[in-house]
Amino acid sequence: MLMRHAIGSVLRRLRTERGATLRELSERSRISVPYLSEIERGRKEASSEILAALCRVLDVTERELLSEVVAEFARVEVLSLLPDRVHAASAVDVAEEHAASAVPHAVLLAA
Amino acid sequence: MLMRHAIGSVLRRLRTERGATLRELSERSRISVPYLSEIERGRKEASSEILAALCRVLDVTERELLSEVVAEFARVEVLSLLPDRVHAASAVDVAEEHAASAVPHAVLLAA
Repeated sequence: MLMRHAIGSVLRRLRTERGATLRELSERSRISVPYLSEIERGRKEASSEILAALCRVLDVTERELLSEVVAEFARVEVLSLLPDRVHAASAVDVAEEHAASAVPHAVLLAA
Repeated sequence: MLMRHAIGSVLRRLRTERGATLRELSERSRISVPYLSEIERGRKEASSEILAALCRVLDVTERELLSEVVAEFARVEVLSLLPDRVHAASAVDVAEEHAASAVPHAVLLAA
């Protein structure tokens, strides 16, 4: 996973958690809908200035956004340690399930 | 502080901690010295692919790099709460000093 993929996933989650559409975020951030969509899908790099603007509109600090991106990478690392057949499940559910059954690597990363 | 400034500071610190010169990092990552220098000074955005290449050469995961960037933002937030006269001191020293003297805001951010 590249950083822009993780940033895009987190930005999309923060937006949907706030019940905002791409169009609403676009109007408030003055970034076009197609460009926002490409950023959320991890197809375009967002400059630091664009990330700062999105953080303001989403009411998070850049530190908070990046902490979520760190968590996103951790989730992917947990998934990469698990057999293919469970990859479809949510990373958090999987991490909790494996923590409960005491698989050493998954427990370390889920901690 | 913009994200590229925080990323640049962290990349420079990781490189110098490993005792590597810009030229050595350039040879191992196949990124030019002037471009590396601009990234470390926060003047150029590094693409996700460039960050991934630098992480490989510096022997850190992207999650570890970003965790350091999160810490860099936290340090700057602590500094912004303090009077101008102590800005010259190291952020970590300042955070520890204020944590010891129980200034509520500094303690929260240093935790």
